[in-house]
Amino acid sequence: MTKSTAKVAIIGFGTIGSGVARLLLEHKDRISRQTGRRVDLVKIVDPDIQRARNVAVPPGILTTDVSAVIDDPEIEAVVQLIGGLEPDRSIMLRVLQSGKNVITANKAVIAEHGPELFDCARKMGRTIAFEAAVGGGIPIIAAINQSLVANQIQSIHGILNGTSNFILTQMEEQGKSYADALAEAQKLGYAEANPAMDVNGSDAAQKLAILAHLAFGARVDWKQIPRIGIDTVDVAEMRFARELGYCIKLLAVAELVAEGLQLHVAPTLVRQRSTLAQVHGAFNAMRIVGDAVGRVFLHGLGAGQMPTASACVADLIDTLLGRTAITFNTLQLWSDAREAPVSLRDPSSVPGRFYLRFNVADRPGVMAEITGILGKQKISISSVIQHESAAEAGGTVPLAIMTHTTSEGAIREATDAINRLAAVHPGTVRMRVRD
Amino acid sequence: MTKSTAKVAIIGFGTIGSGVARLLLEHKDRISRQTGRRVDLVKIVDPDIQRARNVAVPPGILTTDVSAVIDDPEIEAVVQLIGGLEPDRSIMLRVLQSGKNVITANKAVIAEHGPELFDCARKMGRTIAFEAAVGGGIPIIAAINQSLVANQIQSIHGILNGTSNFILTQMEEQGKSYADALAEAQKLGYAEANPAMDVNGSDAAQKLAILAHLAFGARVDWKQIPRIGIDTVDVAEMRFARELGYCIKLLAVAELVAEGLQLHVAPTLVRQRSTLAQVHGAFNAMRIVGDAVGRVFLHGLGAGQMPTASACVADLIDTLLGRTAITFNTLQLWSDAREAPVSLRDPSSVPGRFYLRFNVADRPGVMAEITGILGKQKISISSVIQHESAAEAGGTVPLAIMTHTTSEGAIREATDAINRLAAVHPGTVRMRVRD
Repeated sequence: MTKSTAKVAIIGFGTIGSGVARLLLEHKDRISRQTGRRVDLVKIVDPDIQRARNVAVPPGILTTDVSAVIDDPEIEAVVQLIGGLEPDRSIMLRVLQSGKNVITANKAVIAEHGPELFDCARKMGRTIAFEAAVGGGIPIIAAINQSLVANQIQSIHGILNGTSNFILTQMEEQGKSYADALAEAQKLGYAEANPAMDVNGSDAAQKLAILAHLAFGARVDWKQIPRIGIDTVDVAEMRFARELGYCIKLLAVAELVAEGLQLHVAPTLVRQRSTLAQVHGAFNAMRIVGDAVGRVFLHGLGAGQMPTASACVADLIDTLLGRTAITFNTLQLWSDAREAPVSLRDPSSVPGRFYLRFNVADRPGVMAEITGILGKQKISISSVIQHESAAEAGGTVPLAIMTHTTSEGAIREATDAINRLAAVHPGTVRMRVRD
Repeated sequence: MTKSTAKVAIIGFGTIGSGVARLLLEHKDRISRQTGRRVDLVKIVDPDIQRARNVAVPPGILTTDVSAVIDDPEIEAVVQLIGGLEPDRSIMLRVLQSGKNVITANKAVIAEHGPELFDCARKMGRTIAFEAAVGGGIPIIAAINQSLVANQIQSIHGILNGTSNFILTQMEEQGKSYADALAEAQKLGYAEANPAMDVNGSDAAQKLAILAHLAFGARVDWKQIPRIGIDTVDVAEMRFARELGYCIKLLAVAELVAEGLQLHVAPTLVRQRSTLAQVHGAFNAMRIVGDAVGRVFLHGLGAGQMPTASACVADLIDTLLGRTAITFNTLQLWSDAREAPVSLRDPSSVPGRFYLRFNVADRPGVMAEITGILGKQKISISSVIQHESAAEAGGTVPLAIMTHTTSEGAIREATDAINRLAAVHPGTVRMRVRD
């Protein structure tokens, strides 16, 4: 308790940066008590220091000059919240080289430049903490790096993109189209003007690449992770899924299978009664299976100002206390010392259950043709839905089929053959089903 | 990686002790890699060293003599898994006094003797880690002590007793009576021959007392926590709850309210769609609300050999790495330095919603009498269920009523008045409802 004051800085004064500033300024006593030292926020760097934020900053703290932080040897730790790749990467390297520890919420820079940044930190004897980079306020990274280390992790199923989950929930609960749900998400600030990285699965793939490294030691380029976004999902699927007892979630999956590790991101049917199905709106969640602990499920706000700031400040306290250094030095993340014990396996070679939806001509014999093709591929059907057509007989009706476990090869061949039938019209949908 | 071997011991070779031994012996490479040092299990102490366990122990490790551990200055840490109060307390004091760190899963000894044990550890410059004492393999204590420290915790709602949850799930899903469900739990090893501490809420109250200290600084005797067990729940309530859209869970609640902290353990109706309602069988869960992070939900196996061993070994690794010492010294648990910032408030003074079930005479006018009394106490009704009686008119029928928010004082007066009505027969049930 008699240790000196800890001086800290924030670089990047956007939404999350303002949240971190609020915790450090408005709850200074609490943060200092948890650190066992007085924690002083001495500098906040941002190109725009005029714009109003929802926090009152004492005079002399705001600056546009990053050197005010880099060149101050008394600053021990920097919460860096610029986002994107550059200049975040270069500034982070400069911060580390100036002998300061880094706390970041930027999954993109970790997924893209992890090896370079972590090597630099190791060379300088400094640390990078990044709990906020995956799952916002949910202690996902602490769980894998610390609480579950006695386990061989066997699988991770994550709902890691709050924007996608918000949109899927709107489609499911309000019956909105994808476009309307996206517009609503943008109106409420859950989706950016350019939502591509969120809705096409890239954001989730970046987070999955980080988790795959932490849990399995895999070093994987996130761009190599097969991914399908929610921008492919039609609201019609929501109704069929519900009737089958399922709902649709964008899952990021890392799973040890025979001969390796499979990684993918895709809209997936999950049972309504499962814990993952209870993740609504902008929430995130992760289901981890470990060989000793069994199934552990973590659920909370994966984004937003204060949840993300909560994780950043916890990381800051860990850093100031020295716990981060212990973890950092033990785990040797993104170093050559941490070899990948598993090789990546093409997820399309992994068996599973599938949901298929065809647009078929409403006439006799079509069902027999389709089920015949599935039978020839030895694909067993678990359930089928075809509703009475509202239109006259002779129109097009949707036909939804859920299979038992089969290979993606078999399902692909069967789907291709079915799509060639005269009675099957364009627009076939294929999604994985999680048991 | 060049640090010396860490020598460790286990005292108490029951179910959990065997699980810890399995991880340390069968996964020695993994544990050593995560610790950055070779971890050697050098002694296991138990009065019975003949009985077969599900782990092969090399010769020379098993002993009945606790001094073999106490007197070995090379042993750094002891995983102590005796259970109960004595001799666990005395042996833990001896282990600490001999300069070793302790890892325990024993919530009873922490809840009962926390101050004495933690003072002893501080005096000796040693640590006590106890993640496994609450929620088995779920990292509940790490969440509160480390990941969420930037927050003021506002409430904790826990399903902390797996035996009770298993029994309630059996009653709900299979329609079993309490007695039959308890017998099933005993047959499967989820309940002990004497299940009193589990089913009367005492076990959950001990865990809640620990969480209340960690999250709110409260020092509370667990025996002072108002508690109702599941041994009071009739299977008939399951059906009414379901029809109302709820299910029944044994909740341990710690909540900041006006003027203080309220703590209680009680069977409670929770909405079927809530995350807490998805906690089935022997699983545990905790819903924490923090002022920055919002709602965080953790779910997993709260008991059992390997889940509990997973938490013990994570604690052991934390201890050997030095993270535990940092946390232990910063938090000053159960010390005079950590004052209670809140006073305890009688939970019966806290407003809430209630479920009432009466056995009433099946004749005209009864409903008017009952709702009249509720109205006089300004208790507003949210829903009512009365089914057509199978018997002749003139028999007894159950009447279930769910209220909007009211005070326990009002509900008590109303219930007393209703119980005095000639048309109301004995057996009235009153439970809290969680929104």
